[in-house]
Amino acid sequence: MDHEHHFPQGFQGAGVYTGVKRNPNKLDFSLLVSDRPAVGVGVYTQNLVCAAPVKYDRSLTPSNDIRVVAMNSGVANACTGDRGDRDAAEMAAVAGEACGASAKQTLVLSTGVIGAHLPMEKIKQGAIATAAKLANTPAALEDVARGIMTTDTVPKIRSREIVLDGRAVRVTGIAKGAAMIGPNMATMLSVIMTDAAISAADAQTALADAVVESFNCISVDGHMSTNDTVLLLANGAAGGEPVTGKALSAFRATLLEVCEDLAQSIPADGEGATHLITVEVHGCRTRQEALKIGRTIADSPLVKTAIHGADPNWGRIVSAAGYAGVPFNPEHVDLLINGLLVYEQGTPVAFDEEQVSLSIRDNRDTLLVLILGEGTESARFWTTDLTADYVRLNADYRT
Amino acid sequence: MDHEHHFPQGFQGAGVYTGVKRNPNKLDFSLLVSDRPAVGVGVYTQNLVCAAPVKYDRSLTPSNDIRVVAMNSGVANACTGDRGDRDAAEMAAVAGEACGASAKQTLVLSTGVIGAHLPMEKIKQGAIATAAKLANTPAALEDVARGIMTTDTVPKIRSREIVLDGRAVRVTGIAKGAAMIGPNMATMLSVIMTDAAISAADAQTALADAVVESFNCISVDGHMSTNDTVLLLANGAAGGEPVTGKALSAFRATLLEVCEDLAQSIPADGEGATHLITVEVHGCRTRQEALKIGRTIADSPLVKTAIHGADPNWGRIVSAAGYAGVPFNPEHVDLLINGLLVYEQGTPVAFDEEQVSLSIRDNRDTLLVLILGEGTESARFWTTDLTADYVRLNADYRT
Repeated sequence: MDHEHHFPQGFQGAGVYTGVKRNPNKLDFSLLVSDRPAVGVGVYTQNLVCAAPVKYDRSLTPSNDIRVVAMNSGVANACTGDRGDRDAAEMAAVAGEACGASAKQTLVLSTGVIGAHLPMEKIKQGAIATAAKLANTPAALEDVARGIMTTDTVPKIRSREIVLDGRAVRVTGIAKGAAMIGPNMATMLSVIMTDAAISAADAQTALADAVVESFNCISVDGHMSTNDTVLLLANGAAGGEPVTGKALSAFRATLLEVCEDLAQSIPADGEGATHLITVEVHGCRTRQEALKIGRTIADSPLVKTAIHGADPNWGRIVSAAGYAGVPFNPEHVDLLINGLLVYEQGTPVAFDEEQVSLSIRDNRDTLLVLILGEGTESARFWTTDLTADYVRLNADYRT
Repeated sequence: MDHEHHFPQGFQGAGVYTGVKRNPNKLDFSLLVSDRPAVGVGVYTQNLVCAAPVKYDRSLTPSNDIRVVAMNSGVANACTGDRGDRDAAEMAAVAGEACGASAKQTLVLSTGVIGAHLPMEKIKQGAIATAAKLANTPAALEDVARGIMTTDTVPKIRSREIVLDGRAVRVTGIAKGAAMIGPNMATMLSVIMTDAAISAADAQTALADAVVESFNCISVDGHMSTNDTVLLLANGAAGGEPVTGKALSAFRATLLEVCEDLAQSIPADGEGATHLITVEVHGCRTRQEALKIGRTIADSPLVKTAIHGADPNWGRIVSAAGYAGVPFNPEHVDLLINGLLVYEQGTPVAFDEEQVSLSIRDNRDTLLVLILGEGTESARFWTTDLTADYVRLNADYRT
């Protein structure tokens, strides 16, 4: 984190260790609490195999009456049948009760091992212990973020302040990483809080639109989890009527910035990664087509290993675009790696391979810019390189 | 290779070292020659960025008058502009001439570095030297296969004999691997020869159908190359009229068997691979849907690393199916790993993790069988595990 982040007004949080994770120096249960009913909306995994907490939250949102988000790491409560559904509801009930709220005012998030049942006694004790520690300090906010970490190496918190209709409001979000590891099915989770006043319908649209441009534009390994969830809570504690018009537009823009910051932080902390790769695709007929090409390049193990090896391998990048399923004229394609033109109008250009290679090797960030000649739409996609450490983390935990 | 393979009647071949590859103990140029005009058909990469030899062969096939296939490894003649197109045509002309055939009777295949021009002097000398060595022995056949190897560790040759309309015919094919490495863009190449008589139209349909069920059902890294090509040459040297009816069906079945054998040999020899993974998907509404799920599971780095780590991680497999984009009821899903039921009706079952883990660890072949409850269609897909060696081979060649 580059600077201290604060809760929006009316929000508190805390995180504790309940004994689900093996390391007692880590946290594995968190609460976020609004002191008043908040608008609560969510965007959820599209995986057909979805976890019990996703089903539970989906059934409650959008809502005008959310007070609590209860989160645990270590057990994902996925593929757990009817008992998993009952456990998710019970987790909401006990966490809500500990905070003076009802089960229907409480959303739940879980991440960790799949196919295992929630350890309900630990969850109950964790909820009570966490509720007793609630605070609105930056340290408490960091504890909330730490409570949902799995293979993340750093807590992920981002925030923005903005003035809407003359009132200072804050948008603050936490997230955890997307990569999947060990027997765990880790997950992309994020909760964004704001003290702005916004209607549930506008909040739902704003969040859905922001997710498309942010969390849906990242991948570590292309594997979509059963638990992926992004929640937005807006409690209106900054005062005023729900934002409309220009203020709503300004809020949407700020929400998108926070989502982009959080989304980028995930591949930046990808398992074993040594590079954060930004793939920009320009000159497309539609944004959808640009995204499809960006995702195909970002998911290519050959592109990801090339960047890891500081190899300016334009062939792998251009050929990945070629099989993305988007029609384009390959003779109008340009490619820049870290700002250096390596491929122009469908043909490699003479370039200083050593210079481009060093620019990859010596920077954690790599920028690939692919330009087609089909239109004016563009998209950006973030991913990591693929390293031997990724394979070790994901394969060798048994040995 | 488990046994000796033979050319079909009327075919010869040879392979030589021309100096394109660095190691003079390897071969880098091959010819296959039919002593009479053969039906020649092809199935080509769907990558929009396709190499000059693909464009050249596409322009000539289907044909009733093919005599020669000239192949080189080391330089792929891809992304080489107009000069690349002229070089491919010249390679066909000089190789054809060396064998007493015209350019239009000669198909060309290239694999290796992309963005580099063919070393035409070496290609010309190679064609002359190879034509002087043509033979119809198993050793010559192996040399042909060796001449197109890049990162392959073994030459890939498979064959079948069958009696059609009372005549013994042979179907013999060679292939090279699909993985992509170093500055090379390696490629899946295959040439299948038969002395059966078959019309060009029937040959084209037979090959296209066989490729869908074989070469299109494998992946090493999901990256489709610019040069992928499968050719079928049928010279009718076994005698008789072009096959029809039951004999045609028998030929098609045999061609499919040879294609499946060759296709499987590619991931079996995948870069750094320690496991050949067969993914079977049953109980689907359509074969297309089964294939889509099979490919998604096979391309998941998390599934591939799990198998590498001998981890019976049903969650990664089931959740990969869940994001394949095919609708199904997750509560009707069963999964078997190496014949052992680990997941039934959407819920993990109690199983001996150690036993399943050992069954993965102690065998090069891993069988994943996913059963949906949506219909009666099925598909099979082959892939490799993902290892740290794969990353090293593809990233670290500069260091």
